[in-house]
Amino acid sequence: MKFTIKNSLFTAIVSELHKICSTKSLLPILSGIKIEANKDSLILTGGNSDLFIEKRIPLHINGETVVEVQEVGNVVVLSRHFVTLLKKLPDEIEISSDDMQKVLIKSGNIVTRMNGLRAVDYPKLPEIKIIHSVEVDFASLTEVIKQTIFAVSKSEAKPILTGLKMEFIKNKLICTATDSHRLSCRELKITFLEEAHSVVVPSKSLAELVHLKGSGSATVHISIADNMIVFSAENTILYSVLIEGKYPNTQTLIPTDFVTRITMNTKELIAGIDRACVFSEEWKHNNVQLTMIDNSILKITTNSAGVGTIEERQRISKVEGLPAIDMTFDGRFFLEALKGIQQEEVTISFCGVMKPAVIRPESDVSYMQLISPLRT
Amino acid sequence: MKFTIKNSLFTAIVSELHKICSTKSLLPILSGIKIEANKDSLILTGGNSDLFIEKRIPLHINGETVVEVQEVGNVVVLSRHFVTLLKKLPDEIEISSDDMQKVLIKSGNIVTRMNGLRAVDYPKLPEIKIIHSVEVDFASLTEVIKQTIFAVSKSEAKPILTGLKMEFIKNKLICTATDSHRLSCRELKITFLEEAHSVVVPSKSLAELVHLKGSGSATVHISIADNMIVFSAENTILYSVLIEGKYPNTQTLIPTDFVTRITMNTKELIAGIDRACVFSEEWKHNNVQLTMIDNSILKITTNSAGVGTIEERQRISKVEGLPAIDMTFDGRFFLEALKGIQQEEVTISFCGVMKPAVIRPESDVSYMQLISPLRT
Repeated sequence: MKFTIKNSLFTAIVSELHKICSTKSLLPILSGIKIEANKDSLILTGGNSDLFIEKRIPLHINGETVVEVQEVGNVVVLSRHFVTLLKKLPDEIEISSDDMQKVLIKSGNIVTRMNGLRAVDYPKLPEIKIIHSVEVDFASLTEVIKQTIFAVSKSEAKPILTGLKMEFIKNKLICTATDSHRLSCRELKITFLEEAHSVVVPSKSLAELVHLKGSGSATVHISIADNMIVFSAENTILYSVLIEGKYPNTQTLIPTDFVTRITMNTKELIAGIDRACVFSEEWKHNNVQLTMIDNSILKITTNSAGVGTIEERQRISKVEGLPAIDMTFDGRFFLEALKGIQQEEVTISFCGVMKPAVIRPESDVSYMQLISPLRT
Repeated sequence: MKFTIKNSLFTAIVSELHKICSTKSLLPILSGIKIEANKDSLILTGGNSDLFIEKRIPLHINGETVVEVQEVGNVVVLSRHFVTLLKKLPDEIEISSDDMQKVLIKSGNIVTRMNGLRAVDYPKLPEIKIIHSVEVDFASLTEVIKQTIFAVSKSEAKPILTGLKMEFIKNKLICTATDSHRLSCRELKITFLEEAHSVVVPSKSLAELVHLKGSGSATVHISIADNMIVFSAENTILYSVLIEGKYPNTQTLIPTDFVTRITMNTKELIAGIDRACVFSEEWKHNNVQLTMIDNSILKITTNSAGVGTIEERQRISKVEGLPAIDMTFDGRFFLEALKGIQQEEVTISFCGVMKPAVIRPESDVSYMQLISPLRT
């Protein structure tokens, strides 16, 4: 194998793959990046036991030659030192490997030799049998994931809750995340006429999907197999395992009625709850108390015996139902829920003592969040 | 006590002081910041057992009123929550405290109460009896400290070596740092006609001095007492303890003759040694081998059995003495030494087997570094 490449481009892609490479795998080869030099492109693969990303670098980008392959071939290079070295090299580099998997990296008067591994020993992706296949707008999918993924469970006690449920049903994709204290659910219109199907995708895989740089494509093609999901964009393919098990029925949790519903300015409320969380490190739950006063003011209070109290008043734009609120929430959860909302105004429906509150953007029914109050 | 202040200015200063506040002191009050509101200014003090910084905020800056003191007084506020809160408040804030040391922070509809401590309980700085006193250009002093401080010992085994020796002698300030494997020494011309005097200042205190922001003054006034050194700039005073003990005589370590002396491009050599350090995590000493070939080329090599080898050739601008080098150094030490040199060219004098090499900027005798070779 032998090729020359623009190092800035190469380093960016190797760094991206390095981040997902296993560092402590039983298979040492998984801490490497597979490099395949073909006649028409370079293909780099990195991954861990749950997730693989394959990046294709074409010979030419926007008419400019970025790669020249002198000899096709392949090799696996351990990513840690490789990526550190690349960052310190000039922009024109030549990489080659011989039959003994010795990798030679040349750049002007700088010559580095690294021990590589055989590409044939790199795990092969299983042949996947596609059940469903759908094309989705990449930017919209990214947004939907960001608006829900924070609510997945951080604890491994119920593995199914560490994933995001993606439900493909009648021209809709519904994403749901819950850790049983809160729930975030967002719908996206897509073109999907096949039989309804739902999968649970590890949140780590979706976090990588969201951070994919330079995928350069407007749409992403989703293929679903029995135990795997594949996201293909131009020059990038992400393979992820699915989480097996039965996702809880979250539909029954959603309150159908409310006692009090308020509408408020989203940004101001975010700033207010954020300030209320300042003393949060002092005790386990970050109790933020919400009280309505004078039928039109929301009082946000936290009280930490040792440190002090924070109290702030904000105007409510609209009150529906009973003009009385006195509830306590986990401020951190409340803040994360509000941060998902991009609209100027947010409506919060309080549904009675110890029942979850419903947070929605004003005038958008496709996004909904639930958050359980705290006992005080 | 009661005053209103521009929060952006106040937060910047409180954050700076918060960084040096003790977090785990036997005296809980040391994790606080002392606020004194006087008729003509606000004075903030923060510190730990070795170091105090006092910041003065005048009522007006560049003709603009930044502080208005409604009631003089003082209080100590625990810095951690205070600084987090301030960062989240709007720009106009009012701070007051009552006889019970309850601190009230108001900004529009946001009201925070924190428990303060009595300012009289804050440690008082001892009355210092000044032995010597000298005025130095602030920018030059900062530069001299940066060029030497990295060579102090990181181990507490010999406490005296964790400080920087500052020698005031006949119109010169000589700063010396050594950890016994390397030495960095830099002279600065100052106006000092008193009897020669030397002190050893903890490197942590000098690191804070270097990072002082917005001190806004061109010169710094240094006062030396028996067990303390005080740096006063406009609106900022830094008090530091001195390290007691006898600093080793480093003069005898400096080689007077050389076997081979080479001159090279500083930036290129830094980049080369930096690359050679890529495999450095693999073993304890980061052995970088320097060899002269063809009387005019320096070959920089590292060799890690498990990972690979890096080899690079750089042109030597000038060779004096015997045209032969074959020595091994700690690459990290070598790199730090080179980074102190701002001139375009650097000269390195090799003084024979197992004798330290001398690194100097070309054509500047005021700066010198020694670095011991490694046995291989």
